[in-house]
Amino acid sequence: MEGGVTVLAGGVGAARMLAALTQVVPPERITAVANVGDDLVLHGLHISPDLDTVTYTLAGQINPETGWGLAGETWQAMETLGRYGGVDWFNLGDRDLGTHLYRTHRLQQGASLTEVTGEIVRAWDLGLRLLPVTDDRLRTMVTLGEGPDAGREITFQEYFVQRRHSVAVSAVRFDGASNATPAPDVLTAIDEAMRVVIAPSNPVVSIDPVLAVPGVRDAVTAARQRTVAVSPIVAGAALKGPADRLLHELGHDASVVGVARLYAPLARTLVIDEADADLADAVADEGIEPLVTRTIMSEPGVAVSLARAVLS
Amino acid sequence: MEGGVTVLAGGVGAARMLAALTQVVPPERITAVANVGDDLVLHGLHISPDLDTVTYTLAGQINPETGWGLAGETWQAMETLGRYGGVDWFNLGDRDLGTHLYRTHRLQQGASLTEVTGEIVRAWDLGLRLLPVTDDRLRTMVTLGEGPDAGREITFQEYFVQRRHSVAVSAVRFDGASNATPAPDVLTAIDEAMRVVIAPSNPVVSIDPVLAVPGVRDAVTAARQRTVAVSPIVAGAALKGPADRLLHELGHDASVVGVARLYAPLARTLVIDEADADLADAVADEGIEPLVTRTIMSEPGVAVSLARAVLS
Repeated sequence: MEGGVTVLAGGVGAARMLAALTQVVPPERITAVANVGDDLVLHGLHISPDLDTVTYTLAGQINPETGWGLAGETWQAMETLGRYGGVDWFNLGDRDLGTHLYRTHRLQQGASLTEVTGEIVRAWDLGLRLLPVTDDRLRTMVTLGEGPDAGREITFQEYFVQRRHSVAVSAVRFDGASNATPAPDVLTAIDEAMRVVIAPSNPVVSIDPVLAVPGVRDAVTAARQRTVAVSPIVAGAALKGPADRLLHELGHDASVVGVARLYAPLARTLVIDEADADLADAVADEGIEPLVTRTIMSEPGVAVSLARAVLS
Repeated sequence: MEGGVTVLAGGVGAARMLAALTQVVPPERITAVANVGDDLVLHGLHISPDLDTVTYTLAGQINPETGWGLAGETWQAMETLGRYGGVDWFNLGDRDLGTHLYRTHRLQQGASLTEVTGEIVRAWDLGLRLLPVTDDRLRTMVTLGEGPDAGREITFQEYFVQRRHSVAVSAVRFDGASNATPAPDVLTAIDEAMRVVIAPSNPVVSIDPVLAVPGVRDAVTAARQRTVAVSPIVAGAALKGPADRLLHELGHDASVVGVARLYAPLARTLVIDEADADLADAVADEGIEPLVTRTIMSEPGVAVSLARAVLS
């Protein structure tokens, strides 16, 4: 396939998808449009977990023990912080901290998140283009659905990391989205792509915040005939993280059929795993064309064949 | 001696003086009033070099290789930062970073620098009281006296670390001083002390910014009969850092006589090293009583005997 490939990206699943795509098409033809709803400012530092997971994965430097942060990590800063009784639920490795120091400094100098991300990507020689969906402030907020704090709204990382996503959620909101504008090149990257890929990321907290930036959902809708989504749900469960639970709690089907219903307005094709082959007709009934193949990228050989299928 | 001991403190010299004093009087009777003119915000983090040098030294955790930062330090964050071409002239060890993360977070929560410093001191079980001279913004600014940048004003750390204090200086200014107020307990600690000690720190860039906070110089002047200064100049040279050079460049004598002239309005006694015994009369002529003893605290046994002399 000629032309550009633009990937709507969350964290881990998107990073693996992007790594697979770089095996099949030259990286310089790939643009990732990444979620920044997970971003946080902690200890004065601007942290962009999804941007970093994509960067570190593509650099071959993701920490294999944690699935986030950098390989060869040490934890000396956290140890000192722990001595003071500081906020230590969000782990920051020493190597990783260098990225946050750099990003924070550049942002304070007036650089945009797009510019800083480009600098970081170049420093790791990634070849592809990684764009935050917006340079504006966008924060995924989660309303707790149970327990003594039911009804309370917390930030995504307070839900995901501090509470280990082990609490029911009644609503998700993208704070700042309505006032945000897409970062430079985001809409063009969608408009001009030969293929738009919705990565197997969490539909409600990774892809939805990307679509919530005014103009992005419309651009993807307009590109529907060129758009392929990969289901993050396999046999009714998320491969990683709380996508299944969140879909259910927010009133969706935690199945490829539920994913099909969400993505039918946006994508012509939904790639589903062979484990869900029996649901292909139900997916088609939602108005999106099922493509059944192996999708579990941690299994040998699957990632590249999935990338080929997505581009075919 | 009964009663409190209050020490006007810069970094390394003051830290050694304080460590020696804690051998002679119970730490809970000691208050250090420390310079914050060296503070900087870098990478979004609030860094207080003199507070940290005092803390780490008294905790027995100062890095023996560098003279600043923590022992057992690693440099992983700086290595990542270097990959990005980030600002890396100010070295931040991984262990040390934990302190800056904590301080920055607490300040952003609305805690005062005095409160945060107290928390850090307690976490290291120091026993004494360490007070920043002010909770307000105070920045030592240095005007370059030579070269292509002559006349340009830079921050203290740009002079001290980035340019390794190897450039001539034509002026020093304490930005923010006139609007600053002494931190809680600072004036009381001076007023009520049985002994005020001006540590062997740099008179013009460590002690002067402390005195520049309105009210502090007056308080020390009023305590003159109870105040002892220790000369940081021995045989015409600074034991560490650029005190000799700076004194000379700013129009002072880089000798115990020059120090005597600066401190005569503030202290009854000036402790000078045996190497300067021949200048004792010249010191006395400046209106401050010389006390000749050994003052080089890195030599065995000297620190404690100096502490005793200061308190006698």
